Amino acid sequence: MLFGRIDHIGVAVTDIDAALRLYAEQFDMREQHRERVEEQGVEAVLFEVGDGHVELIEPLSEDTGVGKFIAKNGPGLHHVAYATDDIDQALDAVRDAGLQLIDKQPRRGIRDSRVAFLHPKSTGGVLTEIVEPAH
Amino acid sequence: MLFGRIDHIGVAVTDIDAALRLYAEQFDMREQHRERVEEQGVEAVLFEVGDGHVELIEPLSEDTGVGKFIAKNGPGLHHVAYATDDIDQALDAVRDAGLQLIDKQPRRGIRDSRVAFLHPKSTGGVLTEIVEPAH
Repeated sequence: MLFGRIDHIGVAVTDIDAALRLYAEQFDMREQHRERVEEQGVEAVLFEVGDGHVELIEPLSEDTGVGKFIAKNGPGLHHVAYATDDIDQALDAVRDAGLQLIDKQPRRGIRDSRVAFLHPKSTGGVLTEIVEPAH
Repeated sequence: MLFGRIDHIGVAVTDIDAALRLYAEQFDMREQHRERVEEQGVEAVLFEVGDGHVELIEPLSEDTGVGKFIAKNGPGLHHVAYATDDIDQALDAVRDAGLQLIDKQPRRGIRDSRVAFLHPKSTGGVLTEIVEPAH
């Protein structure tokens, strides 16, 4: 089994404090964590839903990946992340399967996770993240 | 708790049999179910990942919701679905919270589930589905 579960969906937002209200108040999800993730150029908030999360991401500037995404598509679904216990092994497996990687090596993600993104060109237009949560 | 978990992500595809290979072979996910869902104008395949799913959806024609989505955005992430044990109660709750519904009443979804969509205008651009799986 390459992936254990859907770890989270990533939602691009222009105003994270406004977006918070939808998930916290209208959807009644519990806010779990907030962090400025410089490595990804975002301010991020995690909401708990079952054993997965909704990750709201507001770009720190227009020239970040998420900033460019919003300029092109508007706010909305940005990526899906699948959880693995061993991201090095998972990256080897998807590389061997012929998929194109954005991150050849895992890098630091939110809450000290290790993450890597696959290129949407090889995943049917879906920006796909692999995440190994911190142990 | 309004939603129990992320039930699935919906991925719009132009050729479901080509897309199958990515999830079955390169991502090593188990194909769980295939169905033509006339009510939603799609051919759909479910892949298992943890207690959730990836739902591939290929439009049955260009004038369906998913057909129009692909014409505008290309293939990719289409919606997220949250699971509930009681969709009638969940719909009342989101309506009372001021959210705009596409489906005022639940309708039939894949595998005899009951589903309803919220309007992306009131959910930050994210097409959001509520699903009560068949018991």
